[in-house]
Amino acid sequence: MSKSSATNETETAQSATTSARSGEVVIRGDTVTVETQERIELTDVTDRVIALVRASAVREGIISLWSMHTTFAVFMNESQKALHADIKRLLESMVDRDADWMHNDPDHSDCDRLNADAHLRAMLLGHSLTLQISGGELVLGQWQRVLVAELDGPRSRSLRLQVIGIADRTS
Amino acid sequence: MSKSSATNETETAQSATTSARSGEVVIRGDTVTVETQERIELTDVTDRVIALVRASAVREGIISLWSMHTTFAVFMNESQKALHADIKRLLESMVDRDADWMHNDPDHSDCDRLNADAHLRAMLLGHSLTLQISGGELVLGQWQRVLVAELDGPRSRSLRLQVIGIADRTS
Amino acid sequence: MSKSSATNETETAQSATTSARSGEVVIRGDTVTVETQERIELTDVTDRVIALVRASAVREGIISLWSMHTTFAVFMNESQKALHADIKRLLESMVDRDADWMHNDPDHSDCDRLNADAHLRAMLLGHSLTLQISGGELVLGQWQRVLVAELDGPRSRSLRLQVIGIADRTS
Repeated sequence: MSKSSATNETETAQSATTSARSGEVVIRGDTVTVETQERIELTDVTDRVIALVRASAVREGIISLWSMHTTFAVFMNESQKALHADIKRLLESMVDRDADWMHNDPDHSDCDRLNADAHLRAMLLGHSLTLQISGGELVLGQWQRVLVAELDGPRSRSLRLQVIGIADRTS
Repeated sequence: MSKSSATNETETAQSATTSARSGEVVIRGDTVTVETQERIELTDVTDRVIALVRASAVREGIISLWSMHTTFAVFMNESQKALHADIKRLLESMVDRDADWMHNDPDHSDCDRLNADAHLRAMLLGHSLTLQISGGELVLGQWQRVLVAELDGPRSRSLRLQVIGIADRTS
Repeated sequence: MSKSSATNETETAQSATTSARSGEVVIRGDTVTVETQERIELTDVTDRVIALVRASAVREGIISLWSMHTTFAVFMNESQKALHADIKRLLESMVDRDADWMHNDPDHSDCDRLNADAHLRAMLLGHSLTLQISGGELVLGQWQRVLVAELDGPRSRSLRLQVIGIADRTS
């Protein structure tokens, strides 16, 4: 990644009122897997979300994104290496890894990963994101990208996607 | 706005179990535009969300709210001038505008807005909110209002709304 | 609660692509009530969410969770006494209860609960969570539990649930 950010070619559905009634209701789920290399690492999964939206053939609807892990977050922001470094820095300053968290204390916890900071950082970013589908496309502003955050890597992570919408006969 | 907060006349669907089966499925999208005047500014958009819910004629369902911008957030809280000042103060103290963020450094970023703080503050508030519709009304507690937060204004901002639900034949 | 955490017996829908088309669309809402005893208190409501999912008979879909209060949050994390103490500690350190918040100042606010901190802490955790249903079950990773956070108790609190999905004829 360079100094620039990934952008979306077109902003969808910015001004139009759209509607669909009583077409075929479609629900489609899938899982995106991310193999992380660092303890804290952001990954842009937008293209994979778009691929599922298109494969679903849903014209108007929503898509739910759900992290399958407590220490793995999903959120939206710009996809730029510099900003991602800033996000990592903010998380590290907001939640001190080395504080005497009870979750890391064998007298109070049977967790041996010593990852209280990862739980708390993921909680601040969030584990659930709901986006919209309109005109058959994922609704995104110009600089908006869907990001996942590894907070306790490296690990293999899963993000579940569920599309729900109407497939055709829009008006 | 005075010392008082906007409240909702009735809390909806607090106790009843509601259901709808196989009525006409309706999806309706629309965009709310907000012209902001300050760099950081909260706006109550509840009435505009309610208007779309009513126009959709959906009786049972959900409504997804999506900020079309990385530095513009949507969330729920009380609508009171004093509390909004507190929210602004908290955001300013949690994310220092003048830290040496890489996103503001021309050696690492081609963004000339110097708005790293706005990206980080919006991330903490969130860009997506999903509410419920029951009995034809937006489900809200007594003091709950839908707020949007400008973090890098003044600008023209868009919030996309997508209703999905069943229009009639409830039981 | 011991040192251990509640876990889910099986992770659902981790790898399979699932879909449903044009079955009976079902929407079902219900309210979970939580009586809190402390000013700040986390409660695991996962089993009650699962009960509604099963009662709805929805096979593929989503479930929206919505806090009916400004000072009561809903989010996902591990259910362990030690970690919950860490979450409480983080919230207390991020938002100082005794700062001179305007919401607590009778010159600017008619709120007599002096609960600005509760508003701000709930805002950081969030009031809305959307989960998925697949194969008739709530989609959750191994350690994932649905938690609600009382931030201004003790009080009686409500969490509203709305299921939307397809009840049968999956393929």
